[in-house]
Amino acid sequence: MTHPLFEKHQALLEQALEAIARRGYWTPFPEMPSPKIYGETALEEGKAAVLGLHGQRFSLEGQPGTGEWIAPERSPYGVELNVSYPVSEPESLVAAARKAQDDWQKLGPKGRVGLLLEALVRLNRRSFELAHAVMYTTGQGWMMAFQAGGPHAQDRGLEAVTYAWDEMRRIPETALWEKPQGKNPPIRMEKRYEIVGRGPAVVIGCGTFPTWNTYPGLFAALATGNPVIVKPHSNAILPAALTVRVLRELLTEQGLDPNVVQLAVFAQREHTQRLVTHPEVKSIDFTGGCAFGNWLLEHCRQAQVYAELAGVNTVVIESTDDYQGMLRNLAFTLSLYSGQMCTTTQAILVPAGGIDTNEGHKSHEDVGRDLARAIEALLTDVKVATAVLGAIQSEETLRRIEEAASGAFGRVLLAPRRIEHPEFPRAQVRTPVLVACEAKDEAAYMEERFGPIAFVVAVPDAAQAASLAERIVREHGALTLGVYSTKAEYQQTMVEVSCRAGVALSLNLTDGVYVNQSAAFSDYHGTGMNPAANASYADSAFVANRFRVIQRRWHVS
Amino acid sequence: MTHPLFEKHQALLEQALEAIARRGYWTPFPEMPSPKIYGETALEEGKAAVLGLHGQRFSLEGQPGTGEWIAPERSPYGVELNVSYPVSEPESLVAAARKAQDDWQKLGPKGRVGLLLEALVRLNRRSFELAHAVMYTTGQGWMMAFQAGGPHAQDRGLEAVTYAWDEMRRIPETALWEKPQGKNPPIRMEKRYEIVGRGPAVVIGCGTFPTWNTYPGLFAALATGNPVIVKPHSNAILPAALTVRVLRELLTEQGLDPNVVQLAVFAQREHTQRLVTHPEVKSIDFTGGCAFGNWLLEHCRQAQVYAELAGVNTVVIESTDDYQGMLRNLAFTLSLYSGQMCTTTQAILVPAGGIDTNEGHKSHEDVGRDLARAIEALLTDVKVATAVLGAIQSEETLRRIEEAASGAFGRVLLAPRRIEHPEFPRAQVRTPVLVACEAKDEAAYMEERFGPIAFVVAVPDAAQAASLAERIVREHGALTLGVYSTKAEYQQTMVEVSCRAGVALSLNLTDGVYVNQSAAFSDYHGTGMNPAANASYADSAFVANRFRVIQRRWHVS
Repeated sequence: MTHPLFEKHQALLEQALEAIARRGYWTPFPEMPSPKIYGETALEEGKAAVLGLHGQRFSLEGQPGTGEWIAPERSPYGVELNVSYPVSEPESLVAAARKAQDDWQKLGPKGRVGLLLEALVRLNRRSFELAHAVMYTTGQGWMMAFQAGGPHAQDRGLEAVTYAWDEMRRIPETALWEKPQGKNPPIRMEKRYEIVGRGPAVVIGCGTFPTWNTYPGLFAALATGNPVIVKPHSNAILPAALTVRVLRELLTEQGLDPNVVQLAVFAQREHTQRLVTHPEVKSIDFTGGCAFGNWLLEHCRQAQVYAELAGVNTVVIESTDDYQGMLRNLAFTLSLYSGQMCTTTQAILVPAGGIDTNEGHKSHEDVGRDLARAIEALLTDVKVATAVLGAIQSEETLRRIEEAASGAFGRVLLAPRRIEHPEFPRAQVRTPVLVACEAKDEAAYMEERFGPIAFVVAVPDAAQAASLAERIVREHGALTLGVYSTKAEYQQTMVEVSCRAGVALSLNLTDGVYVNQSAAFSDYHGTGMNPAANASYADSAFVANRFRVIQRRWHVS
Repeated sequence: MTHPLFEKHQALLEQALEAIARRGYWTPFPEMPSPKIYGETALEEGKAAVLGLHGQRFSLEGQPGTGEWIAPERSPYGVELNVSYPVSEPESLVAAARKAQDDWQKLGPKGRVGLLLEALVRLNRRSFELAHAVMYTTGQGWMMAFQAGGPHAQDRGLEAVTYAWDEMRRIPETALWEKPQGKNPPIRMEKRYEIVGRGPAVVIGCGTFPTWNTYPGLFAALATGNPVIVKPHSNAILPAALTVRVLRELLTEQGLDPNVVQLAVFAQREHTQRLVTHPEVKSIDFTGGCAFGNWLLEHCRQAQVYAELAGVNTVVIESTDDYQGMLRNLAFTLSLYSGQMCTTTQAILVPAGGIDTNEGHKSHEDVGRDLARAIEALLTDVKVATAVLGAIQSEETLRRIEEAASGAFGRVLLAPRRIEHPEFPRAQVRTPVLVACEAKDEAAYMEERFGPIAFVVAVPDAAQAASLAERIVREHGALTLGVYSTKAEYQQTMVEVSCRAGVALSLNLTDGVYVNQSAAFSDYHGTGMNPAANASYADSAFVANRFRVIQRRWHVS
């Protein structure tokens, strides 16, 4: 059973299948916001579309609501958003999802995959609109908002659809089972195998990456036959709402129940808890802090929970043959979006006796001082600084920056500065704070301090740095681990650390790739093997358990 | 990186991959205990090998033990077994597993798969030995012990290895990532992807199918890079011990740490709980009752738990064009191994107004009476009866038979009989008990009563039978659902029931296939979608989450 949208996008799907098999560089969604690619007027139109929503009601026709509207978003750039969303109740959303599931189920794997590919292509065309929505709500700089909020998120969505399809396509629709009976005729049975979604899915977004961290779960759950209720972070609703609307429009066009995808905006916080513990909710994708994440794992026993939580991302510096390249690379990593990425390095482990470099031996103090200088150098130009840093997304992060700047966690190597944003005078822009401490000061650096806060940690020697890194990842989790070393033996030690602790390792990044970046179709984001995440974007484990195969069989002659 | 054993068995693996893609009939392990296939002396040698173990110590060289020996098995056939096993402590087993994991990890996917295929082939050659071990410990009849305990279990093990390989082979070992930079040279990175097992696995066997229900988890966990501790049921240790020994011998031959596979025999019951809650144990496969199964799901939060629990398998009779065939088929299903299969039908739903058949209309009473007669007819000949029924495996099942026979659950349509086993005078052999009740007597039939106890349930009409079946599966779980109906529309209703409730459906079985049978490579055993099991033998969800991919990347010029 094929479908026109499946046929329309089959070439794209074939390329994506090739990409997940090879894991080289590939993307169908250009990351450059170029007028030549996206159209001469795309930037202005996208911006205007988002500005046009400000102060308006964002309606979602056909979705069950209470009639109430709320506008909870506050822009880290100080821009007045005031977009109102229809309030829903958890039980009505689940009931509508259950009702919509039949349509979605009957569409079959090819129909669902075709429709989702069409949705991703449409979302790509609206990347400038999504980018502005992401930028205003999260405080990301414009370029990151475009790339991570648009094409890179679409890549991750496509990757999830591709893995889902790759699993589903391997299950035959029918089989003829013929068991030989010696000289007698064989026993013959016909069998049919239905791919059945497990039931309504909830995808809970975070405040910093409302599309990038939402699309994998959203598209994986949909592709495998489940209706999805998207519950965005209360401060980053618009990017999710735009996405949900694109999907709902497409569902309606196709004569399907649009409630296959719904947006959950609640007036009361406990409604989220009622939603996720609803007995009919069968999967939950979550990105966010450990408190709510662990609450979900503890209380939502009726559902499969895919959780990305906090961690302490670590870099070990043992030696380098490109001292300046290393410093520049780390400075950019620590500054990008003010460290408000789940992949940003927090702990930089340096042997107390210093390191060998192409510029001679550097003491532990040298490394801390030079890294502080590299950050200052990167952020000297206000235009560069605001573009790289973006704005601080939450009050809690501002508070953590002040706490670190007060010397509460160790000697301050680099104090944070407030920068006036030339375009957004009310934006909260801060440069990173860098703190020096010792390995024994575990209370300081061995807990996630989300935001632009990093530690240069003096460790007795390189061997202890490796074992400390392993313990950090095992006990506190990490999405990224980096090492700088010119010694093959030490690199191998760190490779073994990464395999035992279960974390992706970047070696000697001194060029245009940063430890906090992961590219869809090539880099697995998270491993699912340490406390920072119990799943990965994306692999077969991320999709295979979202559907079940229900068979039937009967004798045929 | 290939391996001689991988190359040796590559043709077998290719066939198995083809089989899981087509899901037609396939097996490399002949189910007929034919001397032509297994050798003229295989039967006698296998029997002698097992009898030779009676009264002996079953040593497992190199496995950490306390020095104590215990012999807890009691044969349902009344045969004196008295095989002693070395007692271990949970912590030493886990420590030995952790130590062995490195060897196993370094062997790589091809080496592991090759070694496991070799092990399965060797186990197949020892099917007669395994069959006698299964027969004496579980009470299965000889033919079932051979087939289910030998080739069919080996099939399920091979199926698990095949799914694991199919997932692992799709992850490239290396990738070159080249990101274009316009007119500048591309950014180039080399990446490596390691498949890493999540850590020590525990596989908990049941007392009735000590190989068939153990091999899927055992071989899935091993193939994906995890050392395994096999914890057999205390009354069915020998089949697991023989299996573990074959694997350990092969590991030793290959110069690997044999503690990749260990046997857990504990002197104290709480040691099992200490084992499964050990923080280093990362996965648990369990087959058994709900009490311990739910305890595992509740308490072993550090591990992925794959659980097959109790259920209420159901058959709906709406109409039939082969009344005698249906009765014979059901009689055999209810009698086979005295209903001590997790797939045996317990509730037979029949409209109170009766059914249309090729022999005219049959009242609800007719159906109950005729089914009772069909069971009696099947079991008239003592040799047939003892071959089909086997022996009752546990005291609890004997107690449940008596309880049902007392009329506690409804009118007794067929009373159980004790049969003298001509070969084993102390064997506990019983014919099934059949009870009539009404749909409203939920306390009677809507709870698993493991053993040869079935209910003919009068349901107001066929539509209500369908919805009752759906509720039984949803709320109490089921591994099998059957329907007899000549009407396409009613069949479709039941297909939809099976998809919504998530259970495999057999339609109109009147011939040589029974609802309680599932064939590896074609029938999924369990769906993972209802309370009877959270996983299936076998699909990609059964293997994909047992390993993780750990990547590393670095710049190359």
